[in-house]
Amino acid sequence: MNRPKLTLLTDLYELTMMQGYYVHGQTETVIFDVFFRSNPCNNGYSVCAGLDQIIDYIKNLHFTYEDVDYLRSLGLFSDDFLHYLSGFHFSGDIYAIPEGTVVFPREPLLKVIAPIMEAQLVETAILNILNHQSLIATKTSRIVFAANGDGIMEFGLRRAQGPDAGLYGARAAMIGGCVGTSNVLAGQLFDVPVMGTHAHSWIMSFPDEYTAFKTYADMYPDNCTLLVDTYDTLKSGVPNAIRVFHKMKEEGKPLKRYGIRLDSGDLAYLSKKARQMLDEAGFSDATICASNDLDEYLLHDLKMQGAAIDSWGVGTNLITSKDCPSFGGVYKLAAIQDAEGVFLPKIKISENSEKITNPGNKTIFRIYDKASQKVKADLIAFADEVFDPSEDLLLFDPVETWKKTLLPGGTYTIRELLVPVFRHGECVYTSPTVKEIADYCKQEKDTLWDETKRLFYPHRVYVDLSPRLYEVRKTLLDQIHSSR
Amino acid sequence: MNRPKLTLLTDLYELTMMQGYYVHGQTETVIFDVFFRSNPCNNGYSVCAGLDQIIDYIKNLHFTYEDVDYLRSLGLFSDDFLHYLSGFHFSGDIYAIPEGTVVFPREPLLKVIAPIMEAQLVETAILNILNHQSLIATKTSRIVFAANGDGIMEFGLRRAQGPDAGLYGARAAMIGGCVGTSNVLAGQLFDVPVMGTHAHSWIMSFPDEYTAFKTYADMYPDNCTLLVDTYDTLKSGVPNAIRVFHKMKEEGKPLKRYGIRLDSGDLAYLSKKARQMLDEAGFSDATICASNDLDEYLLHDLKMQGAAIDSWGVGTNLITSKDCPSFGGVYKLAAIQDAEGVFLPKIKISENSEKITNPGNKTIFRIYDKASQKVKADLIAFADEVFDPSEDLLLFDPVETWKKTLLPGGTYTIRELLVPVFRHGECVYTSPTVKEIADYCKQEKDTLWDETKRLFYPHRVYVDLSPRLYEVRKTLLDQIHSSR
Repeated sequence: MNRPKLTLLTDLYELTMMQGYYVHGQTETVIFDVFFRSNPCNNGYSVCAGLDQIIDYIKNLHFTYEDVDYLRSLGLFSDDFLHYLSGFHFSGDIYAIPEGTVVFPREPLLKVIAPIMEAQLVETAILNILNHQSLIATKTSRIVFAANGDGIMEFGLRRAQGPDAGLYGARAAMIGGCVGTSNVLAGQLFDVPVMGTHAHSWIMSFPDEYTAFKTYADMYPDNCTLLVDTYDTLKSGVPNAIRVFHKMKEEGKPLKRYGIRLDSGDLAYLSKKARQMLDEAGFSDATICASNDLDEYLLHDLKMQGAAIDSWGVGTNLITSKDCPSFGGVYKLAAIQDAEGVFLPKIKISENSEKITNPGNKTIFRIYDKASQKVKADLIAFADEVFDPSEDLLLFDPVETWKKTLLPGGTYTIRELLVPVFRHGECVYTSPTVKEIADYCKQEKDTLWDETKRLFYPHRVYVDLSPRLYEVRKTLLDQIHSSR
Repeated sequence: MNRPKLTLLTDLYELTMMQGYYVHGQTETVIFDVFFRSNPCNNGYSVCAGLDQIIDYIKNLHFTYEDVDYLRSLGLFSDDFLHYLSGFHFSGDIYAIPEGTVVFPREPLLKVIAPIMEAQLVETAILNILNHQSLIATKTSRIVFAANGDGIMEFGLRRAQGPDAGLYGARAAMIGGCVGTSNVLAGQLFDVPVMGTHAHSWIMSFPDEYTAFKTYADMYPDNCTLLVDTYDTLKSGVPNAIRVFHKMKEEGKPLKRYGIRLDSGDLAYLSKKARQMLDEAGFSDATICASNDLDEYLLHDLKMQGAAIDSWGVGTNLITSKDCPSFGGVYKLAAIQDAEGVFLPKIKISENSEKITNPGNKTIFRIYDKASQKVKADLIAFADEVFDPSEDLLLFDPVETWKKTLLPGGTYTIRELLVPVFRHGECVYTSPTVKEIADYCKQEKDTLWDETKRLFYPHRVYVDLSPRLYEVRKTLLDQIHSSR
């Protein structure tokens, strides 16, 4: 496929607004925040991902002659503005929470500080990339949690929403905790383990199942998982697999890692029967892998019922996040710099108090309990605020303000989550490898109590506002109401 | 973003199987069918899409040195096989149903006839592309049906599952009947209308809403839709929009196409109130556009309640097909050529009779009622079967075989759906433009009764087997059962 560059991967209104700002000389620097309002799948947290691709997108932002010609053909844009676009590059600052971090609703995952035209253009692609990868990393985390230590393999490419959804979905799945992916391109680009054995067509291309299995085992003795459900799992597939395992031993070519894959039928029943057959034949080290429309709910139930499954191939439900296929990240104006260089906080009001934005130039502090090193709460504050963990800290919920918690000085630690990624248009951040991000994400999830990781009705982690931010927000709201 | 080529966009097992076929000298030509088992969203039909991107993928299949080096690094593949891959190109035939055609479960949408190694490799990418675009074209068709003639605009890029999901999702949405998309890159690549006006940030960047509206109207007098919900839709947004419409008239610059956009609140209530205010102010030609988490169900209900909305911007629910985010296309072996060049039919059995495949080298005939030109049924037959519409035709359901219909000769017409796309590795098909495909898709939907297009419990169109195909299938099933 012809793979286009992404500068024009934006909504038309970003460009019509840009021309508006351009014509009216609006060159002031503004701050936009990316945040989301609720965790996908009613999860207790989300995992942010996609920053490395956003960096790449920002670095490569450039309108070619063809792009400018196309925009001219729309009859909407002046020659002056098109000339401006032909020299466009991003000159602003970006701060972001590193990929693999656990994050919560309402906190800025990414902050753009740039001239308004530049900040406006990048909205759509930033949201597209961050929403997609954060969704899949979060969904994967749920599935990995349900598997309780068993390996999860990402097998969804054929059902992903296009090539990128397969490719970057696999990347996000690895960040979220998969042990490998079937996607070879993801393996090549992100240096992650690729996995897989054979399909039903392999079996069907041989005169019989035994020959198909034996041929496969001869070729791949180091890692040989035989798909046993082409004809009849318990009457044909498993017995033929066992014959092959015996035969390889007899021939002095014992298999190294080996086992079977179940891909249909009742996985609890079949896995227990197959386990028994394998054990009785002396192959207690043979693994049982399962696939077939798995998700965290079915996986959780199968484990509850004692399914004898060692590893799980998860496809459609993971790669599309089937029960919740979008992550609701939004991009909202938070402040505009005045002539003196001061950021004037801006607020968007709404009849729904959850939708009222947090104004100003902000950052996020994560508060940990000193003894357990578990997350206590997150604190959204102005970027210039300083907190001293030797002093008492009063947390309170910005919506339900009667909910207050006093943390005594010395009992907690603080870490700032947003890090600089671009400064004056130059990238100042080096992305870790996907493997490193995945390791970090695992540590991150260790900072949450299991109560927050539970699949159903998890315990909520609070995201609070600093007293100063709360006051500024309240004053702005009062001003708007009194001006009506 | 670095945009990789797609040759390695495949599951690892395709490559391990290919090496298996290679080592064992399996070079026979085989037939694989792509088909699906049920329509997404319980729809009465699906719309197939994605063929143009599949053609592009097949044409560009080529393992670079870097690809071969990467595969070597996995330690799974022999030098001989890697050498074979470095010279790989697709040499087979592909037949497909043209994009935009309405299709039904169990019929082959695409048929690959190629040496087994080549046919195996292309499985994953073909499914990925066809599944994604057919899903979005089908979902869009539902939304367009619910809109009953109103224009639907695709606004989902920021919530799409990655850049390709936004780009090719917009393409599929245009095929499915959208009047335009916000996605500028889709506009550039597919020559489709791009649409959009401004966001809340435009309003917030001005001292007041009126000035923001007036500035926008001055800039875009030909197509000026003002977003009225930043502060208060009925108390501020609509009155300010009306002031601007008046002012433009006074200034001798009347707007050409103009109106308002509602993006929050109850769209039925607000649109009726806004319509009344606009009409009373003399702007009965001002349009009302709505957006905000729309799907076919809400749209249907809003129209039932008399919402005064002329056009609809649909985002997340369309671009992800939120309630059903995957299309279940599968790729199954149907036949293997023997030494004499005869295709031996192959069948995959299953305990679930819906999952039993249709064997052999097949095609599809669409049967139309001659008088109404509406679809009567589809008929899956062997590729060499010929039907004479002057003769009687007996249709019967392959699962519920007691369901039979006799079509008297002369009362029906027949059209073959599969067309040649590749022959001996050469592309012999020229894709129509997206606009042409969209026009064709609209005609296609006109061949269905409204009963089949209904959103809930639609009337099913039957897909039947030719008597010869039914007999071969039955014989193969009997053989397998008697061999157990």
